[in-house]
Amino acid sequence: MSSLDPGLFNKNYPILITNVNSSDKIIDIFIDEIGLIKDIGENISKKYDNEAILSIDAEGMVVLPGFVNLHTHAAMTLFRGYADDIAFNQWLFDKILPIEAVMTPNDVYIGTRLACLEMIRSGTTTFLDMYFFELDVAKAVRDMNMRAVLSSLYTDFGDSDIIDQRKKETEKYVQTVKSWNNNLITPGIGPHAVYSVTPQSMEWCRDFSHQYHVPIHIHMSETEKEVLDCQKTHQTTPTGLLYRHGLLTPETVAAHCCWISKGDCSILAKGGVHVAHNPVSNMKLTVGKTMPYQWLKDAKVNVGLGTDGCASNNNLDMMETMRIAAMVQRFSWNDRSLLPPQELLSLATHAGSRALGLSTGVLQIGKPADLILLKSSGGFPGKNGLSPEQMLTQSSGSRVDTTICNGRLLMLHEYVPGEEEIMNQASHAAEQLVRRVNQQF
Amino acid sequence: MSSLDPGLFNKNYPILITNVNSSDKIIDIFIDEIGLIKDIGENISKKYDNEAILSIDAEGMVVLPGFVNLHTHAAMTLFRGYADDIAFNQWLFDKILPIEAVMTPNDVYIGTRLACLEMIRSGTTTFLDMYFFELDVAKAVRDMNMRAVLSSLYTDFGDSDIIDQRKKETEKYVQTVKSWNNNLITPGIGPHAVYSVTPQSMEWCRDFSHQYHVPIHIHMSETEKEVLDCQKTHQTTPTGLLYRHGLLTPETVAAHCCWISKGDCSILAKGGVHVAHNPVSNMKLTVGKTMPYQWLKDAKVNVGLGTDGCASNNNLDMMETMRIAAMVQRFSWNDRSLLPPQELLSLATHAGSRALGLSTGVLQIGKPADLILLKSSGGFPGKNGLSPEQMLTQSSGSRVDTTICNGRLLMLHEYVPGEEEIMNQASHAAEQLVRRVNQQF
Repeated sequence: MSSLDPGLFNKNYPILITNVNSSDKIIDIFIDEIGLIKDIGENISKKYDNEAILSIDAEGMVVLPGFVNLHTHAAMTLFRGYADDIAFNQWLFDKILPIEAVMTPNDVYIGTRLACLEMIRSGTTTFLDMYFFELDVAKAVRDMNMRAVLSSLYTDFGDSDIIDQRKKETEKYVQTVKSWNNNLITPGIGPHAVYSVTPQSMEWCRDFSHQYHVPIHIHMSETEKEVLDCQKTHQTTPTGLLYRHGLLTPETVAAHCCWISKGDCSILAKGGVHVAHNPVSNMKLTVGKTMPYQWLKDAKVNVGLGTDGCASNNNLDMMETMRIAAMVQRFSWNDRSLLPPQELLSLATHAGSRALGLSTGVLQIGKPADLILLKSSGGFPGKNGLSPEQMLTQSSGSRVDTTICNGRLLMLHEYVPGEEEIMNQASHAAEQLVRRVNQQF
Repeated sequence: MSSLDPGLFNKNYPILITNVNSSDKIIDIFIDEIGLIKDIGENISKKYDNEAILSIDAEGMVVLPGFVNLHTHAAMTLFRGYADDIAFNQWLFDKILPIEAVMTPNDVYIGTRLACLEMIRSGTTTFLDMYFFELDVAKAVRDMNMRAVLSSLYTDFGDSDIIDQRKKETEKYVQTVKSWNNNLITPGIGPHAVYSVTPQSMEWCRDFSHQYHVPIHIHMSETEKEVLDCQKTHQTTPTGLLYRHGLLTPETVAAHCCWISKGDCSILAKGGVHVAHNPVSNMKLTVGKTMPYQWLKDAKVNVGLGTDGCASNNNLDMMETMRIAAMVQRFSWNDRSLLPPQELLSLATHAGSRALGLSTGVLQIGKPADLILLKSSGGFPGKNGLSPEQMLTQSSGSRVDTTICNGRLLMLHEYVPGEEEIMNQASHAAEQLVRRVNQQF
């Protein structure tokens, strides 16, 4: 496939996709030169034959909106498999924090490009990130032409001496990314969690979000300990505390929410918050409980799906996450009817997009062309009452053949230009990181 | 890839695999014309250059023993996604049993070939099956050149009128398969479960297994209801009941074992039984509990991994099953150290092989050449302290490039001859089945 012209990638021009299966209809899709879906429907290809610079014959494939990964730490892809089977506290404090302490901005850039490569290969076109050196994350995402909301990690751990510096860093980051005028990249603020951010800083983050119109991205009620400690210190749950300090807004995405009560769900609904469910991470890190999907749905809270970082998931495959979300919800709530395929798909696409204030995640005329083509062959015969999209929810991201974000081709027939260089740089960076951390400790 | 010569497949001849990664060493493997690993090691390719009919340059790939799927109902691959999100009882009694009632032997043959195709593509070389029309399963497996233990389903549901017929059918099946003298296919007996087989039949199955030297394959303690009903009727657990009637032997594989006590684990150990853990099926079917891996391990019971049939899993991907086994065990027992990668791999390979009385599942001189080559590229940089094999446990079966069973090439560089025909037949059969069952009800 390397015989493809690399010049086809990473720039906008009219693209015609023909003969693709969408909800059991065979349709064509025409994408215009500014990256919007200009037309979509049955037998429309003739109209656009002359206009298109590239035609993709998608016979035998299924089209879906690109996936929206609603919670990750992309650069942690460098730590895939690192200290994978040791107890949580030892893993975090003895392994992850020390290796993060020797990370350079360039490592973050390289790790994020690796993550973007994996996301492109497995059909994700948009993600919500939180990390340090987030400007380097933003540079990597810009270079990879993906859509993302990139939250700069904010922690103070109760240390008032560093608060001024944190504020300055955050402002500088947001201003810099805004100055790019890149319509795919939205800067955001990422107050880490109730145990790592003081109430004073929470209120500053709230005001900052209002002032700069930037989204808020926070971890919430991931573990029982977090909830018990918060109740002891603040006489309320993390949900209650964040609501008290104004961080639960329609611009907020709260990740995890495993240990929340029905009362918390009502508060989340009142705040208009969106929740990112990370089933694989929650299981791998043995947080002991799964997000109460049914309660959140009943309270009309918008829920999307995330992978979390590769240190706590090991991959960024949203199709695996969809599949496991259904399994863990059904298993935990003993209800086999939870999260049927169509609902799963909407969590992984337009619910995520809606959480980020975007208009992607659906295939409609006038919407940005963020879409993927999936191979439907190989063990998926007949219909059995399910649409091809629903059948695909039983599969993995390796089915993705082609990925288009904002009308730009990012992968065509499994070919991503520059992949080898990204892999080589990441291999080298990961090995050097492990070497540095081992020398130090 | 269809430019490959189909004549390369499904027959034995010397094969040389070069430059493949095995536990972080680059080695060569020479397979002789009777399907055994004749030599394996570093820099040995020169010796066999002239002898080999086919050389496979596996640079950038990792070699593993082929996976052993220790519990499935292969033909149910035709029902993938069928009635996927309805409650358990409705699913089984209103959907699965009626569609099985209209299945023909040819449907079973076609569905099993489809399953074999999917297993070959995702790296499984051996499986343990249980179904009706098992002779047609055996024909399909023979035609696909896989290794399998194929258990003929035995149920009487307390109806003594049908017992004689069941016995005759079982004897005829076992005798027929034995008469083939096919060293890859072992016939077995599959008493379904304690609720579907009378104690009288259990004892007949025990004697039959002794007499014909055939393995026993049974569902055990899958749901709480099964255990409670058994205790009420027989004043003991399913484990106790099967032990009482002699079905717990070193030739027995008990599938599921979710609802077992520590006492049951001791009984299983005493019987020398092997257990098949089916984590995906257990979650999808919301059986409410996961197999107590640690208890079984402590009792020294041999545990392997299975997918169960595609009606309760939706795929036959052993790499996904490995990954989810680790997750569900860690999550359920709140212990992040359970099932580290090396242990997972051994469950999926030689523990399964041992359960079936086979000598596969390891890469050693003199053992049968059941092995797979996996692509290690694409998002797996650096080592991070894990071997390439361990890194691969974070992935899915789509990484499999080449599959060899008993020295025969079943897939080379993702090409399986005859795939399209298998898919087309299966599509047609699945659609006809749904049509027939809808006409009937």
